[in-house]
Amino acid sequence: MSAILLLNGPNLNLLGTREPEVYGSTTLDDVVATVTEHAATHDIEVRAIQSNHEGELIDALHDARDWAAGILLNPGGLTHTSVALRDAISATELPAVEVHLSNVHARESFRHTSLTAGACVGVVAGFGIRSYELGLDALLRHIGP
Amino acid sequence: MSAILLLNGPNLNLLGTREPEVYGSTTLDDVVATVTEHAATHDIEVRAIQSNHEGELIDALHDARDWAAGILLNPGGLTHTSVALRDAISATELPAVEVHLSNVHARESFRHTSLTAGACVGVVAGFGIRSYELGLDALLRHIGP
Amino acid sequence: MSAILLLNGPNLNLLGTREPEVYGSTTLDDVVATVTEHAATHDIEVRAIQSNHEGELIDALHDARDWAAGILLNPGGLTHTSVALRDAISATELPAVEVHLSNVHARESFRHTSLTAGACVGVVAGFGIRSYELGLDALLRHIGP
Amino acid sequence: MSAILLLNGPNLNLLGTREPEVYGSTTLDDVVATVTEHAATHDIEVRAIQSNHEGELIDALHDARDWAAGILLNPGGLTHTSVALRDAISATELPAVEVHLSNVHARESFRHTSLTAGACVGVVAGFGIRSYELGLDALLRHIGP
Amino acid sequence: MSAILLLNGPNLNLLGTREPEVYGSTTLDDVVATVTEHAATHDIEVRAIQSNHEGELIDALHDARDWAAGILLNPGGLTHTSVALRDAISATELPAVEVHLSNVHARESFRHTSLTAGACVGVVAGFGIRSYELGLDALLRHIGP
Amino acid sequence: MSAILLLNGPNLNLLGTREPEVYGSTTLDDVVATVTEHAATHDIEVRAIQSNHEGELIDALHDARDWAAGILLNPGGLTHTSVALRDAISATELPAVEVHLSNVHARESFRHTSLTAGACVGVVAGFGIRSYELGLDALLRHIGP
Amino acid sequence: MSAILLLNGPNLNLLGTREPEVYGSTTLDDVVATVTEHAATHDIEVRAIQSNHEGELIDALHDARDWAAGILLNPGGLTHTSVALRDAISATELPAVEVHLSNVHARESFRHTSLTAGACVGVVAGFGIRSYELGLDALLRHIGP
Amino acid sequence: MSAILLLNGPNLNLLGTREPEVYGSTTLDDVVATVTEHAATHDIEVRAIQSNHEGELIDALHDARDWAAGILLNPGGLTHTSVALRDAISATELPAVEVHLSNVHARESFRHTSLTAGACVGVVAGFGIRSYELGLDALLRHIGP
Amino acid sequence: MSAILLLNGPNLNLLGTREPEVYGSTTLDDVVATVTEHAATHDIEVRAIQSNHEGELIDALHDARDWAAGILLNPGGLTHTSVALRDAISATELPAVEVHLSNVHARESFRHTSLTAGACVGVVAGFGIRSYELGLDALLRHIGP
Amino acid sequence: MSAILLLNGPNLNLLGTREPEVYGSTTLDDVVATVTEHAATHDIEVRAIQSNHEGELIDALHDARDWAAGILLNPGGLTHTSVALRDAISATELPAVEVHLSNVHARESFRHTSLTAGACVGVVAGFGIRSYELGLDALLRHIGP
Amino acid sequence: MSAILLLNGPNLNLLGTREPEVYGSTTLDDVVATVTEHAATHDIEVRAIQSNHEGELIDALHDARDWAAGILLNPGGLTHTSVALRDAISATELPAVEVHLSNVHARESFRHTSLTAGACVGVVAGFGIRSYELGLDALLRHIGP
Amino acid sequence: MSAILLLNGPNLNLLGTREPEVYGSTTLDDVVATVTEHAATHDIEVRAIQSNHEGELIDALHDARDWAAGILLNPGGLTHTSVALRDAISATELPAVEVHLSNVHARESFRHTSLTAGACVGVVAGFGIRSYELGLDALLRHIGP
Repeated sequence: MSAILLLNGPNLNLLGTREPEVYGSTTLDDVVATVTEHAATHDIEVRAIQSNHEGELIDALHDARDWAAGILLNPGGLTHTSVALRDAISATELPAVEVHLSNVHARESFRHTSLTAGACVGVVAGFGIRSYELGLDALLRHIGP
Repeated sequence: MSAILLLNGPNLNLLGTREPEVYGSTTLDDVVATVTEHAATHDIEVRAIQSNHEGELIDALHDARDWAAGILLNPGGLTHTSVALRDAISATELPAVEVHLSNVHARESFRHTSLTAGACVGVVAGFGIRSYELGLDALLRHIGP
Repeated sequence: MSAILLLNGPNLNLLGTREPEVYGSTTLDDVVATVTEHAATHDIEVRAIQSNHEGELIDALHDARDWAAGILLNPGGLTHTSVALRDAISATELPAVEVHLSNVHARESFRHTSLTAGACVGVVAGFGIRSYELGLDALLRHIGP
Repeated sequence: MSAILLLNGPNLNLLGTREPEVYGSTTLDDVVATVTEHAATHDIEVRAIQSNHEGELIDALHDARDWAAGILLNPGGLTHTSVALRDAISATELPAVEVHLSNVHARESFRHTSLTAGACVGVVAGFGIRSYELGLDALLRHIGP
Repeated sequence: MSAILLLNGPNLNLLGTREPEVYGSTTLDDVVATVTEHAATHDIEVRAIQSNHEGELIDALHDARDWAAGILLNPGGLTHTSVALRDAISATELPAVEVHLSNVHARESFRHTSLTAGACVGVVAGFGIRSYELGLDALLRHIGP
Repeated sequence: MSAILLLNGPNLNLLGTREPEVYGSTTLDDVVATVTEHAATHDIEVRAIQSNHEGELIDALHDARDWAAGILLNPGGLTHTSVALRDAISATELPAVEVHLSNVHARESFRHTSLTAGACVGVVAGFGIRSYELGLDALLRHIGP
Repeated sequence: MSAILLLNGPNLNLLGTREPEVYGSTTLDDVVATVTEHAATHDIEVRAIQSNHEGELIDALHDARDWAAGILLNPGGLTHTSVALRDAISATELPAVEVHLSNVHARESFRHTSLTAGACVGVVAGFGIRSYELGLDALLRHIGP
Repeated sequence: MSAILLLNGPNLNLLGTREPEVYGSTTLDDVVATVTEHAATHDIEVRAIQSNHEGELIDALHDARDWAAGILLNPGGLTHTSVALRDAISATELPAVEVHLSNVHARESFRHTSLTAGACVGVVAGFGIRSYELGLDALLRHIGP
Repeated sequence: MSAILLLNGPNLNLLGTREPEVYGSTTLDDVVATVTEHAATHDIEVRAIQSNHEGELIDALHDARDWAAGILLNPGGLTHTSVALRDAISATELPAVEVHLSNVHARESFRHTSLTAGACVGVVAGFGIRSYELGLDALLRHIGP
Repeated sequence: MSAILLLNGPNLNLLGTREPEVYGSTTLDDVVATVTEHAATHDIEVRAIQSNHEGELIDALHDARDWAAGILLNPGGLTHTSVALRDAISATELPAVEVHLSNVHARESFRHTSLTAGACVGVVAGFGIRSYELGLDALLRHIGP
Repeated sequence: MSAILLLNGPNLNLLGTREPEVYGSTTLDDVVATVTEHAATHDIEVRAIQSNHEGELIDALHDARDWAAGILLNPGGLTHTSVALRDAISATELPAVEVHLSNVHARESFRHTSLTAGACVGVVAGFGIRSYELGLDALLRHIGP
Repeated sequence: MSAILLLNGPNLNLLGTREPEVYGSTTLDDVVATVTEHAATHDIEVRAIQSNHEGELIDALHDARDWAAGILLNPGGLTHTSVALRDAISATELPAVEVHLSNVHARESFRHTSLTAGACVGVVAGFGIRSYELGLDALLRHIGP
């Protein structure tokens, strides 16, 4: 049975506990549960890691080289600034899908470009926690049966 | 029964007939059929328009104000250059989801930003024709039952 | 009896039907009527064309070379992106006045400059539909008796 | 009887005395007279101030808070460089209309953007001294009866 | 007998009727005739299309995929702004030669770069209507006997 | 008994009289009184000058060379545009502290950098009229007993 | 009794041990002691954390959501590069004050702007370790009694 | 007997009284005396004005239109920021020579370009007070006998 | 019998000896022979100079003022960097045509603009050694019979 | 016996295990062994630290202040983005040599500049694992016997 | 008897022979004669070198280290592009004065900055051949008796 | 016995004769001797060329195609400005190593990027004349036994 890494970057641990009127009350645990459940129907295991530490995210990506079939990640604010994270994604040589809760194109200009997306298969942005489900679908299809 | 507009911009009529080794052999008709079928299971009708004319795309968006519950669009090359199309999307006051076949972040720098996405709910990019299905899912969820 | 071309670009057909609390309920037809009436008092005929198609706007400008004494135009979103429209205005060798409903200087930075205005006599921006009347006055004075 | 401030910035005192073949022979006094006369027909008084001193222009704007119903201003070269003047216009909380004799979009690139216009209702540019009359019309309409 | 597409973009229909002292009195019809004649000596048919509509130019490029051996095009003002047109040229997978009447490098800075040329074999610019003949020569040589 | 110059630039005379719900109702006179009082407890006299004129601010800085031990200044909008004011601060060879009412980093991008701060000891920004008190503390400490 | 978080970023642990002729011999411990003492007079507890790890700083900010009334932080070099830290500050929904030892406006150009300050109430920069005391004052006043 | 205007901008009144080890001890009065004396040998009168006020510099330039044969000016910090001063120089329609004490090309990057020089005949920079004498020579030669 | 200068810049001496699979095996001597022959049919002599030295290229351009009717040049890498060469072309006051072997618009971004082309009649780029023949045709036509 | 710090940043732990056809099969352990051995011949001890955590790299640099005679570092992707790391290198006041496996100048434009190199003695880039040996040589020579 | 180097860069050999209505008919020989004569009155010898070769200009600067007391140079188009020439000027450790015939600030934007001037004492620009005489005066004064 | 080209660009002939307190007293001859000696131990001959002429450097590179196994070059100031030199390095199809005496990353911003390095194997910068020895080592290793 194959597996994927669900990787969440800085500040995503706060999901559902902050500004619920904007982001809803779904917590990161809920997201992990939903993603895990959905992946299970495809016989795919999900290992979820969240960290506010760029280094732990990179470590997790390196570790995934040994066991993962793909990566679903939300790099948070590192999206726009981290060449090291981009290099780590590339180094896995695994298919990665980048997701964002908000529509970065409609926010401050320093969020309009993504350094990490260049090392991914594709991007899903703007659909709140639904972005994870869509990203998972995309990743599973990319990995294939 | 509500309906959505499936809008495809310049050059997307060529889908499946060009560089099949890259994009696969699925044609735009196939995409329309798949999207239509999937939407039908949600009791949503799909009206599909493709045009290489910015003006016709804007006309179609205006027309959709009278009947559509949402918009699924791939603006093609206009993504990066058309303020008029952005304004037309905004003018519909309808939820819109932008999709791209390729991962624009991994191509030439003039494709790294999107003018139109700022007027949309979100973006799905990089998953080939699968981007449409994911975008449809996102849109249907956004519209709600 | 001489005549002028009243040219409206993308999305201006929606005038008065969208966000009436912002733009008021005056429609494009009303604008055309007002402009026509006012021009009539100067014995000037008005021929009004609105199109969401850059090409039709250019065609209309070319056509105007044969009969118009001047041009009153609101290029909409094309203001900031169309070198082709700028060239078409120049090609008419007619006096042109550019008008905008909103104050472009107080909006997104991509609206702060105008490519088309460089080919015009002048610009009126920020006064809602009143911008057309002011622009007409300016144009009629420029053309002279 | 309400009143408006007619404010002219650096170098506009030379109007009509310099390059008459370009700008005509109408002097600033003539402009003030015309504007005053026209405003009178709307029962509006005009108080005109011209200064080459940014500080005096700001002082005049501050003073206008006590008595003016609106502002008609040509900031001259300060248009492109003065944040202080922009702040002063905002501070009046009065409707302001910016006018320019020349079409700034057809001149050197450092004249293509306006810092002050962002604090105004709108802009009229390119019609010589006629820009003042159009700007006055716009302002009076904005203020209303 | 093979054929090429001669494609002219916005404002080129005015050739020979505007500013004859600058561009000469040769009309677009004359250009088409000359190109046609010259191509005929190489047993090549010429199908000429001019449009002020970006969409029609893209349509024509798509259509050419079925019958043309190459493309000779002057994108006019779209040269500097249209990613959609660039993509359409690439989509034809045909050799294309871009021509310009004027020397774009000696004009306004927004004309110094070409988005469309990146999808062409090469460029000829600055020789008036002679640019077409040179571009045709280049194209015919590229296509070969 | 030593003394400091309290220098306020354009529009700061309006403090407390404009948008009181934002800036509070403390006037510039109140600020001067508070600063004066606080300085007095350190046996420091305060001479306060406010001007909307860049030139008067420069004159005041020059004059301070003869009697002041330091400068507390809010250059207002000149912060972002005046090389002359920066040079005048440098010319005093006195310690200067720059203060701002608002957090300039959270406003329009043209307010994100300060030309004048490069000639100062430091900056305090974002604390309303409290910025003056903090700036005074900083200055007094810098000057020492 | 309420409390605040005193957060110090990369390299600030070296305070007082490096270049004492420039920064003085006050250590970070001294700073913490001074801040703690001063806060105590306002019945405010201080919890001090220093880390060279962006992730630990973000963790500390998240943790502060449960107990802190405000944040006093010196992000060090992360000031100019970390969107993740900016987002973490925003996520606390607590008042934050940014302090810097040196006057960043008088150093290399890559230090002239602050990404993190946009999520803070205000900034104090340039007064050495005194910046902390001033920032604390500002924070306490902002929080109020 | 003809005359020239010697115009000095912000901070130049401090010449000779500040950093004498850098700029020497020659005062502005000395400079005026030297320039006056030298001009007298060419039967040219010198009227010298120094002001820290942009507006007074502009007033002086306007006034010079009635009596001056040329202008020798050091705009100080306004060199790099004042469009209004540039316009005033142009408005005089008199030959102007710009001088600078220091070599602006070897200082901060915001001093590397000159807005005002574009309206002058030429520039002399870097030779301390000697720049005035050289600029005077240049101006006198330009004016001719 | 009139003559033209065929001027080749840095690295063009290697033509035909390097990467023959890309550029073919035609040498610079072959190019010179072809150009000479073709020109001879128009009774035009060709003097060919190649140099890797910017200075020799400038010398050759200066020399051509005495005998040449026009210039055909490939400035190689100097195209993008040499103001001196641009000035030398202008100084000849002769018609010049710039040619490039490759399509510079499809290469690195530092090759997308040409400093030298602004001083030429026009440009031919992208057709390998055929660019010379086309450029010669353009030049001969420009010079006329 | 003195010692140096061999510091490797993000992703360098993967050396030799990833893309061996590009980077060879030498692992980071091999590199450490080689560097250690070579240093030993100079009686220099090597302490090697690799981390994917910016914070740990900074911690290691701080720690080195107590025992190291110099630093050999490959900051990986942090090279281009980390002001904090640059400051940490400066804070050590030790000679540092920056090394890179690949030639950063021949890769994506965001790798063309180095923030950290400004705080180092010099840089060696492009020679694969050989860059470390060369960098060590450079460092040892700099430190001297 | 001491001596100076008079160094003229690309295209200056054409002085007086090209566009005499603009630059006058004074040749470079005349300039050299005038400069030589004037320097002789100060007991200074002039050695004049003109070259269109950057390398020869650098050679000449190097050579001057052995005999010259100063340098008067017009780098022509190299002013804006040559770091090598700037370095050569610095390497002489001699006072250098840069002169230009035209007012570079009033020409194309790529002439608005000078790379070489940063290594000189000062600049004289805009006075035709008179710039040399003024530059010589400045240099002689700088060198002193 | 194979050979390498040691190529030194503008101003490097002055090595050891200028600012010896900075660069030491080692001359270019010493460098050549050291490099030659060291290469001899690998049975590699060294042919050294220094020129201040870009053209001669290009000529030398071309010549090396016939006999050299690799290139060790210090392009001096041309590093940052010469596309022609970059093209010449590429044209040799030989391994090249770029060396710099100083750490270009710690100097003026116009020295932070290298045009020529993109055509090299790698770069060594910042170690004075030792950079040559390190570069030679790198080159010899690259060439192999």
